[in-house]
Amino acid sequence: MTIVAVGQTDLEVGNLPHNRQRIRRLLDDADHAGVQVLVLPELANSGYVFADRAEAAACAEHIPEGATCRLLAEWSQGGRLVVCGICERADDGTLYNAAAVFASGEHKTTYRKLHLFGKEGDLFAPGDTPLPVIAHGGFRYGVMICFDWLFPEAARTLALQGAHIILHPANLVLPYCQAAMITRSIENRIFTATANRYGEERGTVFSGMSQMTSPRGAVIVRAAERWRGVLSAALDLALAEDKMITERNHVLNDRRPEWYRL
Amino acid sequence: MTIVAVGQTDLEVGNLPHNRQRIRRLLDDADHAGVQVLVLPELANSGYVFADRAEAAACAEHIPEGATCRLLAEWSQGGRLVVCGICERADDGTLYNAAAVFASGEHKTTYRKLHLFGKEGDLFAPGDTPLPVIAHGGFRYGVMICFDWLFPEAARTLALQGAHIILHPANLVLPYCQAAMITRSIENRIFTATANRYGEERGTVFSGMSQMTSPRGAVIVRAAERWRGVLSAALDLALAEDKMITERNHVLNDRRPEWYRL
Repeated sequence: MTIVAVGQTDLEVGNLPHNRQRIRRLLDDADHAGVQVLVLPELANSGYVFADRAEAAACAEHIPEGATCRLLAEWSQGGRLVVCGICERADDGTLYNAAAVFASGEHKTTYRKLHLFGKEGDLFAPGDTPLPVIAHGGFRYGVMICFDWLFPEAARTLALQGAHIILHPANLVLPYCQAAMITRSIENRIFTATANRYGEERGTVFSGMSQMTSPRGAVIVRAAERWRGVLSAALDLALAEDKMITERNHVLNDRRPEWYRL
Repeated sequence: MTIVAVGQTDLEVGNLPHNRQRIRRLLDDADHAGVQVLVLPELANSGYVFADRAEAAACAEHIPEGATCRLLAEWSQGGRLVVCGICERADDGTLYNAAAVFASGEHKTTYRKLHLFGKEGDLFAPGDTPLPVIAHGGFRYGVMICFDWLFPEAARTLALQGAHIILHPANLVLPYCQAAMITRSIENRIFTATANRYGEERGTVFSGMSQMTSPRGAVIVRAAERWRGVLSAALDLALAEDKMITERNHVLNDRRPEWYRL
């Protein structure tokens, strides 16, 4: 069994020390709970509702050298894995809505959000990295960010690469995602772990209700709309290797790509 | 506005006169309700739980010459459209789990189910026809059958061909589809109309709860688990042309196919 957790918190846009304190608190809570795999929200270092690109740039950090990333790398020592949404500044100054993955004390990969939401396109460059699947401790961890949930192609791409679970940092505003992730689980026979924010920022309300779902579409845990903390569960990730939704139907191999027009 | 309806009924495997009577009753009800577009369940001419291929073959009919098809063609006169699941025998004797579409008194197309469920593969050949979109009366009607719901590629294929609504004959056994169709609506900003069976046949229970959903994921109507009749609603199908889930996000054009591995 693998102890997987989602960390839900409020944040303050532009208040970097406050956000790092919030992250540190979630990391501590996860540590006490024996968590082995942890998902933290999207843009957790920075907050979300930037006034303009200059404010976003002032919040951005390099991966993996930034202050938040160093906390994450340290936490991941000893065989743990953590993914956290990071407002990233690349070497050339480009900003990305990214997810940084650290495992066993090392930076494993950075994923840059493919599907930007709302006004994010004014701040961030569209993602230019593949949807990643990280092999760690015998299992495969896929990563996508928030609005990627809307596009079934994203979760499908991760499942086809053998992900057992989708780790999903989020700052959810629309009311649809939590239910849609149940469908993503069923159609791919895969676990999902969505770590969401709660609270309000400059008039935008984030929906909380961080959750984990099973390959059979069960909601394993779902947080309250307003609640700060770490929700963990012991998951048998190997269950995601059973792709048979009936004795005769394999959810991936039964696809008929020659008839799809995508 | 277009009056769209789903017809829900019980059926008896192998009892063709009984099933035709059930279909005729739904057609009459739809006529009285002023329905313009009607969806009837999967394999409505034959029932579902065949003992063997011989029993299925004895129930099968040619499209469009079969007795059930003639009823459908007649009902569709005067500008109406109907899709109904048909146990089809092709000219070469091959059996298909098909959906026959009639409009304005004519056979428009036949779709043969791409994703066969459970033991259907022992009876039917896998579908060898494209997922169809039928232009009729200013709107575009997509068709898929039952278990096709599990594969997001099917609904996506129909949406990318401009379908305003997915007409979806079903014989649902698993508990997931009704909720998943809400996700299909949201991710494609499309209407859906699922016509399901209810009742039990040789130990298999069908779940009823035929439903229609809106491009914003609302459940417009949902039938009881056990109920026979026609549920209709006046739909503004043009709403499915608005693909903007936010002011900045188009659910089809925002796809990033170059990053998908499907």
